Amino acid sequence: MRSIEWKNGKVRIIDQTKLPGKLVFLDISDIGRMREAIKQLKVRGAPAIGVAGALGLYLGIKNSRAAGYASFKAELGRKADYLASSRPTAKNLFGALSRIIRAAEEHSELPPEKIKKVILNEALAIISEDAASCAGISVNGARLFKNRERVLTVCNAGALATAGCGTALGVIYKAHALGKIAKVYSCETRPLLQGARLTCYELRNNGVDVTLICDNMAAALMAQGKIDRVIAGADRIALNGDSANKIGTYSLAVLAHYHRIPFYIAAPVSSFDFSLCSGAGIPIEERDPFEVTGMFFRSPAAPPGTKVYNPAFDVTPAGLITAIITDRGVLKPPYPDKIRRLAETAGAR
Amino acid sequence: MRSIEWKNGKVRIIDQTKLPGKLVFLDISDIGRMREAIKQLKVRGAPAIGVAGALGLYLGIKNSRAAGYASFKAELGRKADYLASSRPTAKNLFGALSRIIRAAEEHSELPPEKIKKVILNEALAIISEDAASCAGISVNGARLFKNRERVLTVCNAGALATAGCGTALGVIYKAHALGKIAKVYSCETRPLLQGARLTCYELRNNGVDVTLICDNMAAALMAQGKIDRVIAGADRIALNGDSANKIGTYSLAVLAHYHRIPFYIAAPVSSFDFSLCSGAGIPIEERDPFEVTGMFFRSPAAPPGTKVYNPAFDVTPAGLITAIITDRGVLKPPYPDKIRRLAETAGAR
Repeated sequence: MRSIEWKNGKVRIIDQTKLPGKLVFLDISDIGRMREAIKQLKVRGAPAIGVAGALGLYLGIKNSRAAGYASFKAELGRKADYLASSRPTAKNLFGALSRIIRAAEEHSELPPEKIKKVILNEALAIISEDAASCAGISVNGARLFKNRERVLTVCNAGALATAGCGTALGVIYKAHALGKIAKVYSCETRPLLQGARLTCYELRNNGVDVTLICDNMAAALMAQGKIDRVIAGADRIALNGDSANKIGTYSLAVLAHYHRIPFYIAAPVSSFDFSLCSGAGIPIEERDPFEVTGMFFRSPAAPPGTKVYNPAFDVTPAGLITAIITDRGVLKPPYPDKIRRLAETAGAR
Repeated sequence: MRSIEWKNGKVRIIDQTKLPGKLVFLDISDIGRMREAIKQLKVRGAPAIGVAGALGLYLGIKNSRAAGYASFKAELGRKADYLASSRPTAKNLFGALSRIIRAAEEHSELPPEKIKKVILNEALAIISEDAASCAGISVNGARLFKNRERVLTVCNAGALATAGCGTALGVIYKAHALGKIAKVYSCETRPLLQGARLTCYELRNNGVDVTLICDNMAAALMAQGKIDRVIAGADRIALNGDSANKIGTYSLAVLAHYHRIPFYIAAPVSSFDFSLCSGAGIPIEERDPFEVTGMFFRSPAAPPGTKVYNPAFDVTPAGLITAIITDRGVLKPPYPDKIRRLAETAGAR
């Protein structure tokens, strides 16, 4: 079961807004529908929306009638901007779009029809590299675990969020296979409940013992000594290690710090933003208040007209992160030099 | 608009499970329905369920056919136990039931018909004393606020939770009237959303600027410097100051501590349990998993069969509480001697 794949000339995704009730696949064949799918969280998770962006950009230019490179490039840029405007926080989306544009530039001598083929191949390479990154993160992260530990996670950083086995959940799957996980607690992750809907779905399907909690219960579990480690994904990581992830991640990092519990971020190199010195520069998406005030047990969750603050992400300062688990190894504080070296390697390939 | 009152020989409550959609009043005339109303959270909030318990006990014995005190007392004890089994955490329920039994004992020389009248008067005294406690808490707490502050609260510790203007919200109302509150952030308070449904409803009706957040957003707001104080109610306070309150309160206390924000508990003396040395002895209610996994935007929030941990309360250690605001003054750490003195005064009246 893959969250996103290229199939018969279309992008097949799982419509994640329908889970856990129904497993619905959508075949997407145009850029407009892809942008909507990203915006409406039908496909979500930083690595998966990177893949969705790359394939979406191919869908956007595959029927281009541009005769030469100049007009093709202009069209490609417009389409990339259009996709980039879907969601602001995850680095992977912008990284994947830039990578497609770079691939086109590197083949600017070819006729547009051939550049299209280059673009599709680049998008498919992003898929397979993301799957490989997940595998690398899993192996690197699982080494940090001891025997039969109790792990807390938030949102969904699993197979549904990537083109592979996941980042944070990839680590959990691998550690579980090695007998290192006794049980997982999944924060439900308000407002859209990705932890309840997606992480419980994935972990149960894969035979991992998972217990659902509301986000406000994590501290009480920690105080009871029931959490050995906390692991989360990331949407964007700055040079100093500050990491943006689903709203509530920062809260868990502070709580883990207070209870002296290791707190890990697991993410591929494609989630690092080497252009940002710190998390202060990461744009935080604010979403529709209705996500918070909307229907609950068929009644409104709040009075009509209630003011709402609904940020989708927060930034966890590097100082609260015990380790950043990447596909290129596990980084420990102080982060800046290590992330700079990662940037050099990433740039060099 | 009173959350609970004695009217025409019945107990009139607002059915809080219907808010904010509908304002429905229920007239309760028998003990069985009162116990159900407490259990199903139609009436909730520690002080309000103290009142509900006292009036419910009167409903339970008002038709007693006991001829003498011995059989009347036995019946009263059975009915009190029946009500006490509705919810385990809030001290006020047990305190109110004990107080009714004590009042009966003090009038054991009277015929049962007259003891019934004593009991009703005692229950009505609990109502008016609770309203007076709220007023005292409000005045005492409002003094702690400066000008135009931004306050965070959780669950509902307002008029809906008491027979008066509220505890934590009472303080907010009073401080607001004095120009000391710029705005209030209300944590939605999963799983049952008392913060979204009830606190937003109350504060908006009373002209207080309130913004709703999901529980996992509080830390991010604190990090942005947008919260000046945190204030919560309490269901039970131990001798050392450890305070049980709605699940998530402890989390906010840790987060406030980390961000150096004052964290207050506001509660009447009737919420103190002078028989407990610390919070370790406070029973924590665990509720139906369906509250967490149930319908969400008309879809299940989690896969069928998902394991759930659903504690309704947590305990905030005294060390994280900047002050405990009571109707008898504001207590500051170290708490034990001050709470012991409170016990002596409370016992002496």
